Amino acid sequence: MAKIDVELESFRSLVGEKLPLLGQLVIVTTISKDGVINAAVKSEIMSAVSNPPILAFSCNLAHHTAQNILEQHEFVVNIPGEDIVEQAMETSKDYPRKVNELEKAGLHAVPSSVVKPPRIAECPVNLECKEEFLKLYDDEIIIFGHVVAVSIDEEVFQASIEDRFRIVRPMVTTGEYRYAPISKLKKLP
Amino acid sequence: MAKIDVELESFRSLVGEKLPLLGQLVIVTTISKDGVINAAVKSEIMSAVSNPPILAFSCNLAHHTAQNILEQHEFVVNIPGEDIVEQAMETSKDYPRKVNELEKAGLHAVPSSVVKPPRIAECPVNLECKEEFLKLYDDEIIIFGHVVAVSIDEEVFQASIEDRFRIVRPMVTTGEYRYAPISKLKKLP
Repeated sequence: MAKIDVELESFRSLVGEKLPLLGQLVIVTTISKDGVINAAVKSEIMSAVSNPPILAFSCNLAHHTAQNILEQHEFVVNIPGEDIVEQAMETSKDYPRKVNELEKAGLHAVPSSVVKPPRIAECPVNLECKEEFLKLYDDEIIIFGHVVAVSIDEEVFQASIEDRFRIVRPMVTTGEYRYAPISKLKKLP
Repeated sequence: MAKIDVELESFRSLVGEKLPLLGQLVIVTTISKDGVINAAVKSEIMSAVSNPPILAFSCNLAHHTAQNILEQHEFVVNIPGEDIVEQAMETSKDYPRKVNELEKAGLHAVPSSVVKPPRIAECPVNLECKEEFLKLYDDEIIIFGHVVAVSIDEEVFQASIEDRFRIVRPMVTTGEYRYAPISKLKKLP
């Protein structure tokens, strides 16, 4: 293997896009102080702390997702399957703040059990989160949220892990506007 | 879709393992103050900030990876392909701190260009990182690292994105000791 050194200014640069870094495609729902629902695709997300369950995701400060969380301190991470990839991507369009992207995308809001932002009906898993910690870097913010309630499709929950992924087909993004659905698993050695 | 509410105490609980949350399998190399190389598989990682490029990953404080970074403030994120999944998993075994997991796994250390911990020769991408920020939650720590140098296999770098993933086959973990290699991409709508 012949390696070369490359300059990396940003993960969003031409070089950054060439690094095989994977992120899970999720839809984050938030609500503004005026009660307008926002939904947006995010893919820089991780299980940051296992106990208590804390997720972290990265967002641009200019995005309504960040603005709503800074005001309302709550959000829902909705895990879509490949069956709704088109609707999910519809939420990533740049609509004015008063537009409910879920309606534009043909997705449906269901009231959450604990937080104000809604869950997305068409997503088999919904993780309701309360803001736990914020870390700012210029115009980017990493938002940590404590998962305070979880709802999951019963069939998905009862399935074996192989069937669970075959049913859900969650997606990872790979850069350059590509993604891969995860439906077939292998066992770690 | 019939949803049920489930209690989530921890992402590592039986319920936590059932959530289709994906994380990229990487190998983090560090070095102790005595110069002993450590390598360990991690999968809770994300591109936290795009500009400057900052990665974040989660680690248990009891792990040598965390202890070495707290002492030395540097690490390398090595991206393995499926061809070395067995060797990668060998590094996740619980060896004493004076053991070099790379040797146990049959992987090879190559000096880094900027940081003290080495790169792994068999990984097509190596991201050398300097500690940028730490966030502690009890016995878990989220480590943010600024990517200060990048090396990448030349064939991988020159390839189209489709070929790049076909060559590398990076992996995501899915819980329950399963993983999926990412080799076939689709275009986002």
